Amino acid sequence: MTTPSRRDLANAIRFLAIDAVQAANSGHPGMPMGMADIAEVLWNDYLSHNPNNPKWFNRDRFVLSNGHGSMLQYALLHLSGYDLAIEEIRRFRQLESKTPGHPENFMTPGVETTTGPLGQGFANAVGFALAEKVLAQRFNRPEFEVVDHRTWVFMGDGCLMEGISHEAASLAGTWGLGKLVAFWDDNKISIDGNTDGWFTDDTPMRFEAYGWQVVRNVNGHDPAEIKTAIETAMAETGKPTLICCRTTIGFGSPNKAGKESVHGAALGKEEVAATREALGWPYPAFEIPQEIRDGWRAGNAGLVREEQWNKLYDAYAARYPEQAAELSRRSHAELPESFAEAADAYIARLQKDGPVVASRKASQMAIEAFAPLLPELVGGSADLAHSNLTLWKGSKSVAGDSPDANYIYFGVREFAMTAISNGLALHGGFIPYDATFLVFSDYARNAVRMSALMGAHAIHVYTHDSIGLGEDGPTHQPIEHLAALRYIPHNDVWRPCDAVESAMCWKAAIERKDGPSCLVFSRQNLAHQIRNDAQVAAIARGGYVLRDSMGAPDTILIATGSEVGLAMQAADKLGRNVRVVSMPSTDVFDRQDAAYRESVLPKACRKRVAIEAGVTDFWRKYVGLDGAVVGIDSFGASAPIEALMPHFGFTVENVVATVKSLG
Amino acid sequence: MTTPSRRDLANAIRFLAIDAVQAANSGHPGMPMGMADIAEVLWNDYLSHNPNNPKWFNRDRFVLSNGHGSMLQYALLHLSGYDLAIEEIRRFRQLESKTPGHPENFMTPGVETTTGPLGQGFANAVGFALAEKVLAQRFNRPEFEVVDHRTWVFMGDGCLMEGISHEAASLAGTWGLGKLVAFWDDNKISIDGNTDGWFTDDTPMRFEAYGWQVVRNVNGHDPAEIKTAIETAMAETGKPTLICCRTTIGFGSPNKAGKESVHGAALGKEEVAATREALGWPYPAFEIPQEIRDGWRAGNAGLVREEQWNKLYDAYAARYPEQAAELSRRSHAELPESFAEAADAYIARLQKDGPVVASRKASQMAIEAFAPLLPELVGGSADLAHSNLTLWKGSKSVAGDSPDANYIYFGVREFAMTAISNGLALHGGFIPYDATFLVFSDYARNAVRMSALMGAHAIHVYTHDSIGLGEDGPTHQPIEHLAALRYIPHNDVWRPCDAVESAMCWKAAIERKDGPSCLVFSRQNLAHQIRNDAQVAAIARGGYVLRDSMGAPDTILIATGSEVGLAMQAADKLGRNVRVVSMPSTDVFDRQDAAYRESVLPKACRKRVAIEAGVTDFWRKYVGLDGAVVGIDSFGASAPIEALMPHFGFTVENVVATVKSLG
Repeated sequence: MTTPSRRDLANAIRFLAIDAVQAANSGHPGMPMGMADIAEVLWNDYLSHNPNNPKWFNRDRFVLSNGHGSMLQYALLHLSGYDLAIEEIRRFRQLESKTPGHPENFMTPGVETTTGPLGQGFANAVGFALAEKVLAQRFNRPEFEVVDHRTWVFMGDGCLMEGISHEAASLAGTWGLGKLVAFWDDNKISIDGNTDGWFTDDTPMRFEAYGWQVVRNVNGHDPAEIKTAIETAMAETGKPTLICCRTTIGFGSPNKAGKESVHGAALGKEEVAATREALGWPYPAFEIPQEIRDGWRAGNAGLVREEQWNKLYDAYAARYPEQAAELSRRSHAELPESFAEAADAYIARLQKDGPVVASRKASQMAIEAFAPLLPELVGGSADLAHSNLTLWKGSKSVAGDSPDANYIYFGVREFAMTAISNGLALHGGFIPYDATFLVFSDYARNAVRMSALMGAHAIHVYTHDSIGLGEDGPTHQPIEHLAALRYIPHNDVWRPCDAVESAMCWKAAIERKDGPSCLVFSRQNLAHQIRNDAQVAAIARGGYVLRDSMGAPDTILIATGSEVGLAMQAADKLGRNVRVVSMPSTDVFDRQDAAYRESVLPKACRKRVAIEAGVTDFWRKYVGLDGAVVGIDSFGASAPIEALMPHFGFTVENVVATVKSLG
Repeated sequence: MTTPSRRDLANAIRFLAIDAVQAANSGHPGMPMGMADIAEVLWNDYLSHNPNNPKWFNRDRFVLSNGHGSMLQYALLHLSGYDLAIEEIRRFRQLESKTPGHPENFMTPGVETTTGPLGQGFANAVGFALAEKVLAQRFNRPEFEVVDHRTWVFMGDGCLMEGISHEAASLAGTWGLGKLVAFWDDNKISIDGNTDGWFTDDTPMRFEAYGWQVVRNVNGHDPAEIKTAIETAMAETGKPTLICCRTTIGFGSPNKAGKESVHGAALGKEEVAATREALGWPYPAFEIPQEIRDGWRAGNAGLVREEQWNKLYDAYAARYPEQAAELSRRSHAELPESFAEAADAYIARLQKDGPVVASRKASQMAIEAFAPLLPELVGGSADLAHSNLTLWKGSKSVAGDSPDANYIYFGVREFAMTAISNGLALHGGFIPYDATFLVFSDYARNAVRMSALMGAHAIHVYTHDSIGLGEDGPTHQPIEHLAALRYIPHNDVWRPCDAVESAMCWKAAIERKDGPSCLVFSRQNLAHQIRNDAQVAAIARGGYVLRDSMGAPDTILIATGSEVGLAMQAADKLGRNVRVVSMPSTDVFDRQDAAYRESVLPKACRKRVAIEAGVTDFWRKYVGLDGAVVGIDSFGASAPIEALMPHFGFTVENVVATVKSLG
């Protein structure tokens, strides 16, 4: 072979994908075959990264939103010199390989975000681009553009059909994210066949309506046209760009190209052979000739690139030592040294002062106390700022160009909001928070799941946490949501009972670097609870004895949030052999050692009643078959809280009667 | 007063809204004040309905997608002569009034669908319009347009920001729903303030990109302009129409009009008085002068309208008796008389034949068996037809004009799909089903909740129900989803263990007229289970003894779906004192009488092990603190099923060991 052509380089992607899917007899060859030419041009000529250091802070971010085409990304990473050996490609979709069915950020070096649930990768990318914009505003100085990278995203028809693409594209347009470039794989095929029957949008017009630059009618198999389109995108600094690439799914397959049959199944031995013939690729499976490897030249370029940036950064550090130290701290996800102590002091003061406020207000007070210490805290609400109480005195919109920009007006877009938070968290340099009513966590639910799966350090704030919100009625009253959020693996849910627990859960969420937290707050005022220092410290263990019995408990009341006050009142009626456990986070409590858990919920005591304004069965894990739960298993109703609470049984009398019914 | 002006009529809406919100000291006056003029023109001059019979089948459907403005709808219903007395308006947002905080279809005559969760009303409306189109195709005959109504929807900026508006608008455009008309309340205010900071879409351009007719720049306070826009909409039969109405939120309030402060709070006594002054409305709260009542003239017109239609229908019935009988049956939600018997016969045959298939395949077999009996069954998949197995031999796309149209290619739009199903169900004449992977029920979650809240007879089909789907990995593997769906009140979740249970759950879902069912199926093949007739019948009770112990059980294994076969194998190893309970629906089982539940799960037996490839704690309601659960509390992994099942402990050995660990 002489110098390989661009097509040869792209074919290396195609055959790694074809052969890996064939070996696994599972996977999606059609998209990698269709987007290989685009990927080759982008990765070899434009992507600013360093395969030797996938965590280089100023790298371009590449997102494969159509994540089923994972082999495209694995082929790119392998060919570009990332730590992804051919053995891993051979083990595509096998247990504990670095090449799972969909790209997973926690499994594979160079994978920025986990994709597969369609549309979310695109929204993550908007988060990456927003992170870059806001960091650049804060840290760059004349001649020192230390934060300066692009975000590139591949997306298919499926991503564009999903509602989240609307929400995310709209925000990207509003924010003018000029360094965001999306490639639309316009192949007219989705799983059910030709998209004419169900996808007739004029997508370029739609994106122009969002304020994007749109590059139309690019032949996605012509490197020259792709290059021109990318140059056009890079020249536009005030708008994100959509490049519309006409491609053929399964490009190169003589009998399956352009058909849905190539989307999600191995080509089959014969068609693999026929495709080798058709594309002039005589090499055995998983063999890439050296000339073609040499044509993939990102490795050395990446070293040089990062080295140049390191020099720039060193000069910046000499000139602006404080900013450099701060950027370094934030990019390494280190909290300010003073944070923990300051937070504890704030919490101790609250315990002493005992404010009686709604926990959503206590949340705002915590933000007000912590945010000045944490410039990395960035976030906002889905058009409920004055209900969620997410604004604080230092809030400045990210839509502008302020160096202190830290507040996001997300509009009514819960799903994109949450996925953008994930992008901000994965980018680094930020601890993002987002907010809506608890019931509308439903709208964002899979993005919350993705926070947890990816280990994204994002904080999801949910107010109006029960029927206690009152008149808005059952459409707005969460019933199953607390339980449903707690069941998401690796997700920490907190429902604090007063201002002290509210501040403590904010602290825990800020300090939990390897995963998300959902902080759940009331609309209504909550009583303050008295605690000694040990009890204040024990809040962080998720559950603790708030009021103990004289001697071993005869009865244990377990409650969260607004029902803790009720439990305390009921305990007063019930007498001295009743223990009250406040359980702001079952997730955190369940992680405590067995001895601690036994000390709070001794096995010997089976007379247990849980109280929470939500589904009852969740609490069977603590009260078992012999206990009881005061909760709600129906939908709520529209009425003032004063009418609702007794209507649904949240009264001292009912709790007392429930305890007595256990005999 | 002389003959009232249109503005006077509209002001009646305004003051009912203002005074009701003021009395409740809770609610949203701004939108009703802003959209009152539009509503007055639509309801008095165009809406084809009969206030005396809110269930008249051929009525126009009116949907308030911006449901927080519920007082607009209550005022319209009251003024038009629906059974909604002024006393109910006075009791706005009080317990058990017919005027809850957001419109609820099950509380108020004339409310077609429950709204408040933004964007979903719009998607419901697309379902209503689709229902009309498909019914018209099937039942209308030349000169007998017995199905002929429009669907009108009000929507705000919030609805348009939500992703579901993209999904629903795109489908409405593709389907060419010419009788769908949406009014955009373009008031430039959302809860956080002026929308310039977060809603900069060119919405008219966006809707043109979906293939809609767009009427731009309509003054929403000018009846003549509104009328012209409506006439333009009605003249276009091949496309849905968006009418863009510039309005002032809180129109008429001297100090709050045009401001977000009027959106979601009472005006306050002084501003109420000032607004009375400004709009020339001297009447006391809740008093409507007779002249103005007379100006609202829908009642009599409605009687005439329905009477005319009844005559048309009678003539149709004389000419086409079979079609008329069928339309009548369907519009009354009656199943064909033969259905139950035929279904039972099919299930008995399956029990005898014992096919070993994936339950998704068994689901398709059930559709194939039942759909020919049920022309009202309409549905499809979110671009996963060949994975969900939702197509059957008689499937014909609703995008065309076939009289037998019954299949919906939803594209990758899970949320709109589900909300459109709700619309189809609420319209009447259909039993809708929709389908996606179980994990992506997340994308649709609040619409599933709305199915349950509204009592919509919709069937949600979810395949690929566990880690058993294999290589696609954790983004595609449900863990918490079964539990989370079961916790939605009034939602029936079924996870059948073989072809027989699969058919039985389809039958149950079809027969459950007052609520939704989620049918959850496996990707992989499942063993057939042997049953006697009583056991076959007992499937419908949600849980039953599949394999009994000799005498009282020492141990009970409880399992669902793909884990039932595992439980049976483990029981064989464990011996004769082990009972196996198959529990395809915990929701249905929990509704059985106590004696039946005791007969299946006797209290005396505490040695219980539940087995399900999902979160463990859900099962504590049956196994208590003394039992054990074989399940998964982490995310899954990408690998072939043969590797995954043992990796996560789904082996006979592990089940046996777990039982033995209980001592």
